[in-house]
Amino acid sequence: MLLEQIQQENDIKKIPPEQLEQLAEEIRQFLIAHISETGGHLASNLGVVELTMALHYVLQLPEDKIIWDVGHQSYVHKLLTGRQEGFATLRQKDGMSGFPKRKESPCDAFETGHSSTSISAGLGYVQARDLSGEDYTVVSVIGDGAMTGGMALEALNNIPSLTTNFMVVLNDNNMSIAENVGGVSKLLNTVRTNEGFIQLKSDIEETFTKNNVGKRAIERMRNTKNRLRRLLLPNKLFENMGITYLGPVDGHDIGTLIRAFQRAKLQRGGVIVHVLTEKGKGYEPAQANPRKFHGLAPFYVATGEPRATKDQPCYTDIFSASVKALGERHPELVAVTAAMPDGTGLSAFGEEFPRRFFDVGIAEEHAVTFAAGMAAGGMHPVVAVYSSFLQRAYDQILHDVCMQQLPVIFAIDRAGFVGSDGETHQGVFDLSYLSSIPGMTVMAPKNRWELHQMLRFAVGFQGPVAIRYPKGTASGKMKEYSSPIEHGVSETLCEGKHVVLLAVGSMVETAMDVREQLLAGGIDCGVVNARFVKPLDEAMLARLAQEYDVIVTMEENVVTGGFGQQVEAFVRGRDLPARVEIAAIPDRFVCQATVAQQRAEAGLDVGSVCGLVRSALDKTGKKTEKKPGQKSAGRRKSGGSH
Amino acid sequence: MLLEQIQQENDIKKIPPEQLEQLAEEIRQFLIAHISETGGHLASNLGVVELTMALHYVLQLPEDKIIWDVGHQSYVHKLLTGRQEGFATLRQKDGMSGFPKRKESPCDAFETGHSSTSISAGLGYVQARDLSGEDYTVVSVIGDGAMTGGMALEALNNIPSLTTNFMVVLNDNNMSIAENVGGVSKLLNTVRTNEGFIQLKSDIEETFTKNNVGKRAIERMRNTKNRLRRLLLPNKLFENMGITYLGPVDGHDIGTLIRAFQRAKLQRGGVIVHVLTEKGKGYEPAQANPRKFHGLAPFYVATGEPRATKDQPCYTDIFSASVKALGERHPELVAVTAAMPDGTGLSAFGEEFPRRFFDVGIAEEHAVTFAAGMAAGGMHPVVAVYSSFLQRAYDQILHDVCMQQLPVIFAIDRAGFVGSDGETHQGVFDLSYLSSIPGMTVMAPKNRWELHQMLRFAVGFQGPVAIRYPKGTASGKMKEYSSPIEHGVSETLCEGKHVVLLAVGSMVETAMDVREQLLAGGIDCGVVNARFVKPLDEAMLARLAQEYDVIVTMEENVVTGGFGQQVEAFVRGRDLPARVEIAAIPDRFVCQATVAQQRAEAGLDVGSVCGLVRSALDKTGKKTEKKPGQKSAGRRKSGGSH
Repeated sequence: MLLEQIQQENDIKKIPPEQLEQLAEEIRQFLIAHISETGGHLASNLGVVELTMALHYVLQLPEDKIIWDVGHQSYVHKLLTGRQEGFATLRQKDGMSGFPKRKESPCDAFETGHSSTSISAGLGYVQARDLSGEDYTVVSVIGDGAMTGGMALEALNNIPSLTTNFMVVLNDNNMSIAENVGGVSKLLNTVRTNEGFIQLKSDIEETFTKNNVGKRAIERMRNTKNRLRRLLLPNKLFENMGITYLGPVDGHDIGTLIRAFQRAKLQRGGVIVHVLTEKGKGYEPAQANPRKFHGLAPFYVATGEPRATKDQPCYTDIFSASVKALGERHPELVAVTAAMPDGTGLSAFGEEFPRRFFDVGIAEEHAVTFAAGMAAGGMHPVVAVYSSFLQRAYDQILHDVCMQQLPVIFAIDRAGFVGSDGETHQGVFDLSYLSSIPGMTVMAPKNRWELHQMLRFAVGFQGPVAIRYPKGTASGKMKEYSSPIEHGVSETLCEGKHVVLLAVGSMVETAMDVREQLLAGGIDCGVVNARFVKPLDEAMLARLAQEYDVIVTMEENVVTGGFGQQVEAFVRGRDLPARVEIAAIPDRFVCQATVAQQRAEAGLDVGSVCGLVRSALDKTGKKTEKKPGQKSAGRRKSGGSH
Repeated sequence: MLLEQIQQENDIKKIPPEQLEQLAEEIRQFLIAHISETGGHLASNLGVVELTMALHYVLQLPEDKIIWDVGHQSYVHKLLTGRQEGFATLRQKDGMSGFPKRKESPCDAFETGHSSTSISAGLGYVQARDLSGEDYTVVSVIGDGAMTGGMALEALNNIPSLTTNFMVVLNDNNMSIAENVGGVSKLLNTVRTNEGFIQLKSDIEETFTKNNVGKRAIERMRNTKNRLRRLLLPNKLFENMGITYLGPVDGHDIGTLIRAFQRAKLQRGGVIVHVLTEKGKGYEPAQANPRKFHGLAPFYVATGEPRATKDQPCYTDIFSASVKALGERHPELVAVTAAMPDGTGLSAFGEEFPRRFFDVGIAEEHAVTFAAGMAAGGMHPVVAVYSSFLQRAYDQILHDVCMQQLPVIFAIDRAGFVGSDGETHQGVFDLSYLSSIPGMTVMAPKNRWELHQMLRFAVGFQGPVAIRYPKGTASGKMKEYSSPIEHGVSETLCEGKHVVLLAVGSMVETAMDVREQLLAGGIDCGVVNARFVKPLDEAMLARLAQEYDVIVTMEENVVTGGFGQQVEAFVRGRDLPARVEIAAIPDRFVCQATVAQQRAEAGLDVGSVCGLVRSALDKTGKKTEKKPGQKSAGRRKSGGSH
């Protein structure tokens, strides 16, 4: 095994050039074997095996800096920097991250997770290097999908002022997670099919190990439908901006890659190396369906099928079906995604209503203001997006949507803990940043039926509405509670004595479990489903704060600026007697683990909340009147709002 | 006067073509006369007189939609849509806005304020139009500076998929507020000096009224230093992306403009009309110094000099001098601005340390992650930016800076109310959105000396720090209080009885005035300068909440997620006895007015806070022991922290 010879960074240079292809094959087998056990990002990593090897061959780590845009394609980099053992605990609590982490290795120059940051960060390193009088090489590796993000384009615009070397490797697989859209993609397609490709290829090929892989790739490229689009000198785009352009280069030909990177290292100023790769390369199921093999759960290597079958729908499934159904009845309903038609579940809507469906590429800012424009023009847009990516569009939500009170629906998936992706992808800030915006309505459903109800409500509402729901199985409990949604009105599930749990979205089911558990100990908690985080249900709060001694708020969001603090401020501002206890995520970034582990760490599991309730009751000096162990019938309210 | 014939939209079409130049001249005189009285944006509006007239000549309003990027160049549009009288109250409370407002006129299709939104919004209108089966024309007018914003580039990338008409007017004055930077600018320069300009010009000119203005403009363009940069076919950039390109067009030749817009209206798909304009056109002082005549206070028409002379430095001046002074002693200090070297005061640093100064263009997202990259590379960057524009970079602050705990200093100007720019520019959300981010430190100085102290502290601190300070005169009071800055430690100015004012930044001076006023009524307020909004000074809070019956927090920020709610949550969480009252901005957008009017409207003036203190004392049942009218010596602490 050649892979065993790679114990740390730069060890790859000990491998003779003629054995690099074998090493690439071993790396692919290693990745497939491990990711099929642990889950993780597969297709993107299989696509950059040779690209990463060639960079490591040409660079000296950790002195030289590689910045991996989005970062989920850094597995090969981790392998080549001595982290083989980490793959056993990939993306697990206290295990190896699925993204670059500076605490893991000095070879991880910059942490990434969200798209399109690498050129900006790389430019920062370049300026720091030059000002410090150092001479290391800085390389940003960015996909063609990430290149459509505004931030990457802003950074690209700042490359031409450079007089010293900066290498941008454009990892062009003609697909980010879904298919690419727009002008940048069109431009790249033109380059891809240009005759210049062939010439550069031959030029680079001549002195290095030859093989047939490159030639076959060229044939494949030439035979695409894009061949017809040969416009004049499209690579002049970069040249005219003042950036040197090298490529396109066959991304699975190690020799060619090494030569290209060596050449690029010597350029003065910014240089873009355009590398053509194939997602899922070397593993048939992934090559055939790279969208499916983007990020995945443990699977069977032979078939590519997941080991665990999903028997319960997730919130994404519910959203997908609901928004499609609503589209039938509402011709004004249009849908926008930023390169995530599958992840958000919008693809079903898109198939049914192609004219009313817009995938704008990785461009959250544009997505939101584009939706605002459609709303101003009389449509009712749904922007479906992950919570943590919507952070990109905070200003657009505030300045372009809410200031004009335009009817845009934000369907916010992955809100709350996301598990193994870790801190970069946690959707735990949205209740805070959305609540700070005047005129915004913020909702969260307790279960799968309520998500559908809330969407139906939002479609009938004239103003900005956000509905946030978590990753994972959509709760199938509490079906009996289904009072109609009214703006700003909560839903009381159970009355109790002394203490009431006021829970947001995913926490309502937990609150019901807390209630069950505490009943056994003689404590009879009321449970209220907040439904609306903004505006607050002031009538309900006033009532609860009169009738109960303790209100415990529960939310899967950071404590700062979240729901609990709004409740506390309201209750105190009205001089109401109840004590408010806030169960929310403490003020720190929460690392990878299972969602259950993350909730426990944040004090949002059943046990922690039970403890909070007990200690709060102790503080008030109130004791429940029931005896321990006595089973309460409770005072359940079926389908009633307050 | 031709202008008198313009009573409402479309009236311009009644003016014979040969009189349009006279109308342009009248409009310029009108603008100069009025803006010299009221203040406002001058240079940019003088630059688009003919451009706006030509659009109104070609379009039918309000059916057709014009979207003005950034919006401060919409004055001519307001004039041509019957809002002449509004100029008497321009940018004043209850008067006409300096930006497009849908409530002002149905001809204002979309509200703007922040840069680079217009193409996204325009694309939204286009899709809404097509889905509704309507056939109006949509035009987005965007400057070359705004074109460097990532959002505009994201939108540009989405134009090629269009099959129906969408007109983007690129208003190219080779300068946004400051000089442009980067590759996009380089590309445009190339186009500007291309021979094609001449040919298109002649082509369009032939059948329409001729005059010498256009020819002179061409000569001027041809004689720039950029002439040497003629690369091959640069306008192919847009063509290769799939966007039709028309131009460049002389932006001060009405006939040519009308012909170009008429032609563009008939194009299938997206079309960019590249118009060359001159900022300040027709008013000598503004033409000579367009940066100075961007947004301005009332001035003398003859000289261009401001009517009121500034005798007190503003916070921007203090920052400018401080950061330059710190730069001398700290070679690792680097500075970043997003196209605002003058507005932020960074230009002085830039002149002194050109290698350590970076103007990245209108690109707040890139600015922040670029700074993160420099910090990772060992530098200590200061990002100077207006509060409301920093909203654009919320995700970058969270994901790229704070998650890695990189030492980046955010110098946040225009934090709090901004007066006449109104709701789009209010810097009243930063305490909320910054406080929600783990690991962030947030500070605000009480006066000019403290801003310098805080900057000095930040330069010595290893982690992300934000310092926010307001528009306008830097308080020159309270010089005697100048205890050293310690992380997370507040500064007690005066002890009092029963009630203490805990104020943030600009509100400390107000708190001292409240104290003075209440002393006359026998109420002896303590005053504490919070200094740090995050982390909270818990030791101080614990003490205050024991020693005082009432804590009144004061901040120029929205109440939701702001300082007061953090204080309230802390005090309640610790079961401390004090009552907390929050003086902050209510949950609504605050329109244009003077800063004093806005503070009063928000309950942040001396009178309102005095009322809040009195009613809070009433609620606690506590009365101060002094007799009304008795002058208290107070218990002032000089220079002491708690």
